[in-house]
Amino acid sequence: MSSRGKIQVTTRVRLDDPDDLAEHYTPGVAELAKRVAEDPSVLARETVRSNSVAIVSDGSALLGLGDQGPAAALPVMEGKAALLKRFADVDAWPICPVSREPEDLVRTAKDLATSFGAINLEDIAAPRCFTIERQLHDELDVPVFHDDQHGTAVAVLAALHNALKLTDRTPGDTSVVISGAGAAGSAIARLLLKADFSAERIVVCDSKGALHSERDLTGEKQWLAENTNRGDAVRGSLQDALRDADVFIGVSVGGLLKGDDLARMADRAIVFALANPDPEVDPDAAHEHAEIVATGRSDLPNQINNVLVFPGMFRGLLDSGAAKVTARMLLAASHALAAAVGDDFDREHIVPSVFAEGLVPAIAEGVAGAAEND
Amino acid sequence: MSSRGKIQVTTRVRLDDPDDLAEHYTPGVAELAKRVAEDPSVLARETVRSNSVAIVSDGSALLGLGDQGPAAALPVMEGKAALLKRFADVDAWPICPVSREPEDLVRTAKDLATSFGAINLEDIAAPRCFTIERQLHDELDVPVFHDDQHGTAVAVLAALHNALKLTDRTPGDTSVVISGAGAAGSAIARLLLKADFSAERIVVCDSKGALHSERDLTGEKQWLAENTNRGDAVRGSLQDALRDADVFIGVSVGGLLKGDDLARMADRAIVFALANPDPEVDPDAAHEHAEIVATGRSDLPNQINNVLVFPGMFRGLLDSGAAKVTARMLLAASHALAAAVGDDFDREHIVPSVFAEGLVPAIAEGVAGAAEND
Repeated sequence: MSSRGKIQVTTRVRLDDPDDLAEHYTPGVAELAKRVAEDPSVLARETVRSNSVAIVSDGSALLGLGDQGPAAALPVMEGKAALLKRFADVDAWPICPVSREPEDLVRTAKDLATSFGAINLEDIAAPRCFTIERQLHDELDVPVFHDDQHGTAVAVLAALHNALKLTDRTPGDTSVVISGAGAAGSAIARLLLKADFSAERIVVCDSKGALHSERDLTGEKQWLAENTNRGDAVRGSLQDALRDADVFIGVSVGGLLKGDDLARMADRAIVFALANPDPEVDPDAAHEHAEIVATGRSDLPNQINNVLVFPGMFRGLLDSGAAKVTARMLLAASHALAAAVGDDFDREHIVPSVFAEGLVPAIAEGVAGAAEND
Repeated sequence: MSSRGKIQVTTRVRLDDPDDLAEHYTPGVAELAKRVAEDPSVLARETVRSNSVAIVSDGSALLGLGDQGPAAALPVMEGKAALLKRFADVDAWPICPVSREPEDLVRTAKDLATSFGAINLEDIAAPRCFTIERQLHDELDVPVFHDDQHGTAVAVLAALHNALKLTDRTPGDTSVVISGAGAAGSAIARLLLKADFSAERIVVCDSKGALHSERDLTGEKQWLAENTNRGDAVRGSLQDALRDADVFIGVSVGGLLKGDDLARMADRAIVFALANPDPEVDPDAAHEHAEIVATGRSDLPNQINNVLVFPGMFRGLLDSGAAKVTARMLLAASHALAAAVGDDFDREHIVPSVFAEGLVPAIAEGVAGAAEND
């Protein structure tokens, strides 16, 4: 079988006779080139860069498949480019650099900032994803968005916002256990802190149990140990952490918990078991102990998936001409997503469908509005 | 004014319901990713890479504008991407790296080889273009084509082939003076040598006159001095070199010659004055001394332009899955282009129109056929 993949380039201009060529290629294009040379802002307004995104991945944490390298990543990033077009009319191209050292990825991504108006980092393993993203965020003047971190965090916060509403809770009095201290788990914890959840009541667990200040940790995990689980309320296993917890958020590995592990959670518990394709806990078993259950699966209610977020996010970033992604934008995107659930809102509809009308423009407007206030 | 430029990304697949998403994104795309991880050739057959080209420029020799940098280059490369789609159904994206050292350009271009099936180098100044192209040619297993060199050379050779036919000459007994020892002049000289023109009868001139073995030269110019103008027949100025010459090929600067400078050429002279937008010599004045006159201009007869070549060249490279561009492919492309002029063939039609039916497939087939024989 041979196919040309899921995306293609098409022209926005007519090229049917010599006059068209003279206008859009030589000599006509020289005028535009001269104007860009005189005023670089013309690049952002009148070229393909105005609407384009590079989807950059090294394939080091590809889907649920682990480290598969850049070649295997290409069709995944290509599929994502197709989604960006379909949902947000964004022109994205998959870039999976051959060289795989983090400093090489940073250098190549920086080199793309002339050609693309924004950069989507994707499926890059922790902890390298943190250093890569921060360096690019600091050194580039085009927005850099690591979807596995922030797309997931925005979707989770929106779903959680609605789940709290249904179970009569407020962020400040809600205890949250996050299973997974990688890209997604870290970004969720950081965004919950920005959204007025309590640093005393968020506990992040890795495969060895709760992160706390007496464990020997470095880098991002050290930061999490210092800024969540304040007072070291929890020092044991994930199961220990779940005692009396209001919310479980799994962004780790399938089949980690038995349904009965959830029995020790608080009444009206909220369980987001987002590992793909197999959730951390069987959803049916979870329902015996939890009032609200969400997964990452498209064949079950309450699918929490990044595709709810990234099309509107990039639409908003490009429309606003933002130079950086900020926490304020992430919160605005989350609020817009939570609100977009509309009239269907109930315990089996805590997030809208990705096909929901108005979803992408609502998030885009939220992001662009936040950009103006930054 | 705001526009989104000349190209966009569009989808090749339907993404209208959750089943479409499951097939083309997660979880469906994981199957394709796994197959690529097991067999990298799947990448070349079943992803966007199968039909894609990176158009890479540092803007160091942009059109006739000189060194304008990567930002100014972007709209030009974007226009070229539009032409590649329009004429050859190739999916090309403009990449103008921020960092401008030749070694950085090489590194970034090499990093693109997962994402693109071929690389078109464009508007890169001599002599850096030679080292960049050779290094990429040697180190990559995707074809690398520097259009300013080889696209120009292929078009010139095709036009020259037809001009010789009209003036009853053969390559071996034709003397050629090339004005310009940069990317185009060098590549033309090299291709003429491959096409049985005589090393004694090709003279390349730079701004100081004829290249010969007693000038103090390095790099590409040194190579040209050693491999053309054999016997140092010409040691003077461009005007000196033109004495009794059959062919003048200008790929240098406009207004370099007066019409009367051509009076010293042989009878039935051939003049290709290709500097853009102003030819090396006024075409009307040239006609007083030359039987055949060609320029790079679209508003005059005999327009010799790379756009005659590169669409078919890349179509053939992608169709054949070639790993390298070879001299055999360049000659095949040139023969196909010369033959495509068809029934209109006369001294004002030595090359076909870029809109000529069958031109792109003919070149593509020539290139693909040569690839099989390499």
